[in-house]
Amino acid sequence: MSRFWSPLVHTLQPYVAGEQPAIADIVKLNTNENPYGPSPRALEAIAAATNETLRLYPDPTSLGLRKTVATHHGLSADQIFVGNSSDEVLALTFQALLKHRAALLFPDITYSFYPVFCRLYGIDFVEIPLDADMRVRLDDYRRSCGGIILPNPNAPTGVGLARAEIETLLQAQPDVPVVIDEAYVDFGGESAIPLIDRYPNLLVTHTLSKSRSLAGLRVGVAFGQRPLIEALERVKDSFNSYPLDRLAQAGAAAAYEDKDWFEQSCAKVIASRERLTTMLRGLGFDVLPSSANFVFARHATHKAADLFQGLRERAIIVRHFNKPRISDYLRITIGTDAQCDRLAEALGEMARWNGLGPGAVDGR
Amino acid sequence: MSRFWSPLVHTLQPYVAGEQPAIADIVKLNTNENPYGPSPRALEAIAAATNETLRLYPDPTSLGLRKTVATHHGLSADQIFVGNSSDEVLALTFQALLKHRAALLFPDITYSFYPVFCRLYGIDFVEIPLDADMRVRLDDYRRSCGGIILPNPNAPTGVGLARAEIETLLQAQPDVPVVIDEAYVDFGGESAIPLIDRYPNLLVTHTLSKSRSLAGLRVGVAFGQRPLIEALERVKDSFNSYPLDRLAQAGAAAAYEDKDWFEQSCAKVIASRERLTTMLRGLGFDVLPSSANFVFARHATHKAADLFQGLRERAIIVRHFNKPRISDYLRITIGTDAQCDRLAEALGEMARWNGLGPGAVDGR
Repeated sequence: MSRFWSPLVHTLQPYVAGEQPAIADIVKLNTNENPYGPSPRALEAIAAATNETLRLYPDPTSLGLRKTVATHHGLSADQIFVGNSSDEVLALTFQALLKHRAALLFPDITYSFYPVFCRLYGIDFVEIPLDADMRVRLDDYRRSCGGIILPNPNAPTGVGLARAEIETLLQAQPDVPVVIDEAYVDFGGESAIPLIDRYPNLLVTHTLSKSRSLAGLRVGVAFGQRPLIEALERVKDSFNSYPLDRLAQAGAAAAYEDKDWFEQSCAKVIASRERLTTMLRGLGFDVLPSSANFVFARHATHKAADLFQGLRERAIIVRHFNKPRISDYLRITIGTDAQCDRLAEALGEMARWNGLGPGAVDGR
Repeated sequence: MSRFWSPLVHTLQPYVAGEQPAIADIVKLNTNENPYGPSPRALEAIAAATNETLRLYPDPTSLGLRKTVATHHGLSADQIFVGNSSDEVLALTFQALLKHRAALLFPDITYSFYPVFCRLYGIDFVEIPLDADMRVRLDDYRRSCGGIILPNPNAPTGVGLARAEIETLLQAQPDVPVVIDEAYVDFGGESAIPLIDRYPNLLVTHTLSKSRSLAGLRVGVAFGQRPLIEALERVKDSFNSYPLDRLAQAGAAAAYEDKDWFEQSCAKVIASRERLTTMLRGLGFDVLPSSANFVFARHATHKAADLFQGLRERAIIVRHFNKPRISDYLRITIGTDAQCDRLAEALGEMARWNGLGPGAVDGR
């Protein structure tokens, strides 16, 4: 606390990111990173840009990257906005498109940065409860509002909505901006990007941190019709002219160009997710159906906080949210099969110690 | 314009960055980049970080970089804040420290992003005129206000204030935050960083884009006592957890470690500035005394807009601000001596064509 702070600062409750622990030989399954590493072409492009030209400012419009992304998705470059991570893209979106007199709607269980952005920008919001199966019930979003933001698939549940369902929402709410945050869509979800040409109120956001394995490079993307993109550009140019450095622009473009690497990496993660889901169910877990690179699971009898702690003692880090409705769950990032095996083994060990193996599960 | 925009977006007048033209063999003296390139150690550090670990998020607190910067300046890491360029650091500073009931003060002729930040965050401001010699007159900042921000040296004039003058201001205004934006201080200015321990209301900002020749990497720094830094952290963690990517953190730290490169590069720029200043005066220019890596100069009889255009036709790009009080001036970045020679030659040529050589200057 300080008298020099702007009054706003006293009211903030900052987002808490998953920890980045410095433990040797750790199995890190807590921040939804990709186990397979970025495309070698992305690394080559960064290496090629690491030279004397770093003395020069980057292209403030990231045009080369935007053209590459546009080609990949069959759009035009002026339908693309890029920023320093999808968190920055989302923050600018909240500021540019989601602050209206009427309240913004999003799920009660969702990406926990949304209410943080709302407090930062003074945006009224209403949290719409997920149903008892932890699903987004779109009928609940047919009320009067200033805007809607939904992750698809949702986080931290991993549960996805079909594109046709998103389209129904867009038709029901043609007068407010609808933002679909597709951070995890490449792991088996259905993207709303094909709807952009028909719905002027649709903005879709992506990240290169998950399916393109570049969390360390900080690149996010938004897709939408020209007026929505222009709103983001106006706020960005009032905030930071050059948000993406030269290396990030080069690496991100090359990552989009290496479609094979991207598809193979996603396919491996999806296969490991299905394998881990089966193993967890065998250990007595209820696992929500996931379209993401993580699963959200609760044990029939074992407390999530205890499992979290026990795993941590075995150098396996997952994420536990000590929050209403989800404190029974663990969010587990999909690692390599070897990492998933080590996780399952540790959970099996803990279950046996406590007499909580599969045999103890019936009655759930 | 779109009904989907937040009302704020309609009111914005975004900052216009200097152009990044794609012309071959251009002499680019318009955005105050360093002609000498970054430290080879920075390039090596980036190369060493360009690997599979880019799949992982960066350290959200950039602790390693902050420790290195702290050591360089004789401070502790918790007195250091880093961000994605000093523009981002400044934007967060406006939001976190400079929005108060009373108006913020800054010069009428200064970094033109300041009023843009004020409009973005709804901050009242009063522009204090520079005196007739284009100097900041600190007595004019002794009025009641919510905060003060001054570049030192000022931009685009290049004129610097002594540390003792800044200290007098801090003593006169102990109850409001005072931000000294030292983007250009390493080219002969006096930094206020040694005052930090004594003045809890002082925040100093730096960039790696100029003296460390890393405009393409986007790294900025703020220095202050703990409560001021905490305000920046709180806003940052409500906006973007990981603003600095892995490569930027690695490259920036290595650039700070290479003190020799930094000092030699600054010394060369300073020597070229003095040389260019003499040449410009010989050509009939009035050149303000500069402590920066640029000069601000007007010709006795020749219009700045015409000179700008004539230089452009010769593939030499400088900056001209078509704004009251400074439309007669050109802001010229200090390039290599060869670039400065090419500039002087072109100006000399234009002066001869128009009969505006040194002989025409008397009477100014």
